[in-house]
Amino acid sequence: MSMQAKEANSVLEKDCPSIYSLLSEAGRKAFFPKSGILAQTAEAKGSRYNATIGIALDDSGDPLSLDCLVKNSGFDAKDTVLYSPSYGQKALRKKWLDRIKEKNPSLGSKTTLPVVTNAITHGLSIAGRMLVDDGGKMILPDMFWGNYNLVFQHAEFDTFEAFSGGKFNVDGLREKLGQNPGKQVILLNFPNNPTGYSATVDDVDGILSAIEESAEKGNKIAVLCDDAYFGLFFEDDVFKESVFSKLAGLHENVLAVKLDGLTKEMYAWGLRVGFMTFGYKGLTGPAATVLEDKVSGMVRGSVSNVCTHSQSLALKALDDPALPDQEKMNYGILRSRYSEVRKVLSDRRYSERFEPLPFNSGYFMCIRLKTADAESVRKKLLEDYSTGLIATGDLLRIAFSSISKDKLRDLFDNIFKACNG
Amino acid sequence: MSMQAKEANSVLEKDCPSIYSLLSEAGRKAFFPKSGILAQTAEAKGSRYNATIGIALDDSGDPLSLDCLVKNSGFDAKDTVLYSPSYGQKALRKKWLDRIKEKNPSLGSKTTLPVVTNAITHGLSIAGRMLVDDGGKMILPDMFWGNYNLVFQHAEFDTFEAFSGGKFNVDGLREKLGQNPGKQVILLNFPNNPTGYSATVDDVDGILSAIEESAEKGNKIAVLCDDAYFGLFFEDDVFKESVFSKLAGLHENVLAVKLDGLTKEMYAWGLRVGFMTFGYKGLTGPAATVLEDKVSGMVRGSVSNVCTHSQSLALKALDDPALPDQEKMNYGILRSRYSEVRKVLSDRRYSERFEPLPFNSGYFMCIRLKTADAESVRKKLLEDYSTGLIATGDLLRIAFSSISKDKLRDLFDNIFKACNG
Repeated sequence: MSMQAKEANSVLEKDCPSIYSLLSEAGRKAFFPKSGILAQTAEAKGSRYNATIGIALDDSGDPLSLDCLVKNSGFDAKDTVLYSPSYGQKALRKKWLDRIKEKNPSLGSKTTLPVVTNAITHGLSIAGRMLVDDGGKMILPDMFWGNYNLVFQHAEFDTFEAFSGGKFNVDGLREKLGQNPGKQVILLNFPNNPTGYSATVDDVDGILSAIEESAEKGNKIAVLCDDAYFGLFFEDDVFKESVFSKLAGLHENVLAVKLDGLTKEMYAWGLRVGFMTFGYKGLTGPAATVLEDKVSGMVRGSVSNVCTHSQSLALKALDDPALPDQEKMNYGILRSRYSEVRKVLSDRRYSERFEPLPFNSGYFMCIRLKTADAESVRKKLLEDYSTGLIATGDLLRIAFSSISKDKLRDLFDNIFKACNG
Repeated sequence: MSMQAKEANSVLEKDCPSIYSLLSEAGRKAFFPKSGILAQTAEAKGSRYNATIGIALDDSGDPLSLDCLVKNSGFDAKDTVLYSPSYGQKALRKKWLDRIKEKNPSLGSKTTLPVVTNAITHGLSIAGRMLVDDGGKMILPDMFWGNYNLVFQHAEFDTFEAFSGGKFNVDGLREKLGQNPGKQVILLNFPNNPTGYSATVDDVDGILSAIEESAEKGNKIAVLCDDAYFGLFFEDDVFKESVFSKLAGLHENVLAVKLDGLTKEMYAWGLRVGFMTFGYKGLTGPAATVLEDKVSGMVRGSVSNVCTHSQSLALKALDDPALPDQEKMNYGILRSRYSEVRKVLSDRRYSERFEPLPFNSGYFMCIRLKTADAESVRKKLLEDYSTGLIATGDLLRIAFSSISKDKLRDLFDNIFKACNG
């Protein structure tokens, strides 16, 4: 282990021993190489003869870039082709933290400054490696994004049934926590892919009390909050913040990790800008720095840094006074589709053939077929009804995010017909 | 191990057993999830009711994006915010392979189509995990980019002295290969960071014969070619192609892996577009597909996919007829700085205080101090001469890529003075 990692770990051990005990071996080894080339480069900033920098500059000190690239970027060379820090651009990180605080008013406790990740998958991957050893367990509901299987390939999933009585299965979570004393890593995803379910205010109370009980027993608990679809909440009883806001200050044995980004929140799937933020009841300044350093070291070791141009675009959009209205407009479109799905589903014929899983948010909803096989119905829908859905197990997943409102009734009618054979 | 990974592995075992035997445990587990959501989404393309897609579309089927983001991107929403495949955009991959072939005329054997990575670091990281098990050895010269320590943290470096008699130390490489029978993973970086040395035509002959000898003994050898600084060759005797072009067809026991990208080749450090390409003497079509699938699966599991907007910019620039002239212009500027460094170094006073390491290419050159300590001289240069260099061990690294030609004599004079105390 490097000297810098050892020094970082001793800060954590002293200030926040619970966080230290949650780190995997890789998490303990992680550090940001502040000494060496990067420190020396920082020291040389502003020198008349600065030959530290591993890029090419023209004779006046501007990036020696290619016009055929920069001219199409909408930004100048500096904001397009220069490297960003492995931590991400400072202004963007601050802006995003402001946004987190604004949208999560319950967030009382101290957090780290968000570190920019190559979108949410990258943040999940880093969190997984930082907190879970090879073969280590992760506790999560049994309805989850398929790519978790690749992202957390080194971990073992210990799942519980996602729903109980049409609600989030708090007892299932509590049971898993009871079965796994010691270190516990939980993964929560609200709004959920594939079900489109977000924890209600009641669910959140239950989740918090289950986790607090476990923490009270002395277990150390990390909770990863995959907030990819954050904000797309469509029912009154849904908790309108991230669970992160409540977990961050819950208990000195609970570390909350927020993974979010522009991907869905700002309808910028392909731009690849995400963030990773820690919240913890007893977080000190030095411990926050260590966590940011470790994440940034893992960013550096996996992709070096995140696209500068994407960060420039993100920052400019976040500074744009038109942003809230444009977000509201898109939200309104998705919400009206959600409402239409609800309306369409009230057709009593449907209940003979399928029933919806609980849903109240996000891009998706799922139905469970009562009389037919999901994969057969999917194929029939494609062949006879020009209708494309995702079949997963005995469920069909419907992305109402990508279907116009006026097509939704036909879509469900097609499913009904296909179920009828 | 998933069924899809097993199927992929059996193709490799049958068609290219040497490649199969080079895979790490993670490399064997890697696969691209072609069945499931992605396959079903592909099948649904063009359906009248397509509710498979995990993005948001407006009522006319265009991306439901935010104008405050897209309006500054220089591209339309589709080329800015939509997801790209985990493999990268097909047109870009083909274009890049054309470029590789054009710049490496010796490349005779079949290669995979390049897979787009989140720049070269990401490609190196994937190659490292795909080919090297935890604690597995990598053979490389002792002068290497510091970030290799993070990227290949799971591996053990078995280094040999980089130079011998002012040339690449072929005997050092041969010796290491002799000491490590069985599976051998070599990492070559020409032009090299930090030394700015590229293998000469003679060096390449030596490297190839050392590797071929080892392959003849039945050893299985993977050679990672970190071609970050490819093309910046400044001396006549330097081999003007990537060693990859010769390694790709060398022997049925040798797998060549090329890691390259826009970062330095197209002066687009912050855009984060890289490529990973395999070359192998007996590569079959199905085996090439398996390798592309495994890499793309690892892309998907680490970052999902690479920035669409960066790929759009890259493709447009590669299609721009002005590109070759603009590249030539930048190359000319860097080459003239290189020549100036050579000229300045002929000052005979300098040889009492320092000597250059072999260099002939790239962004950098290094000097070894004869009478003073590198770190002390670095600090003195900063304080008394407003001159910033990188000290590493007993060397000073000078990035002539970022210093105008007219400052280079002063810069070396400053070093000389600082060495004099």
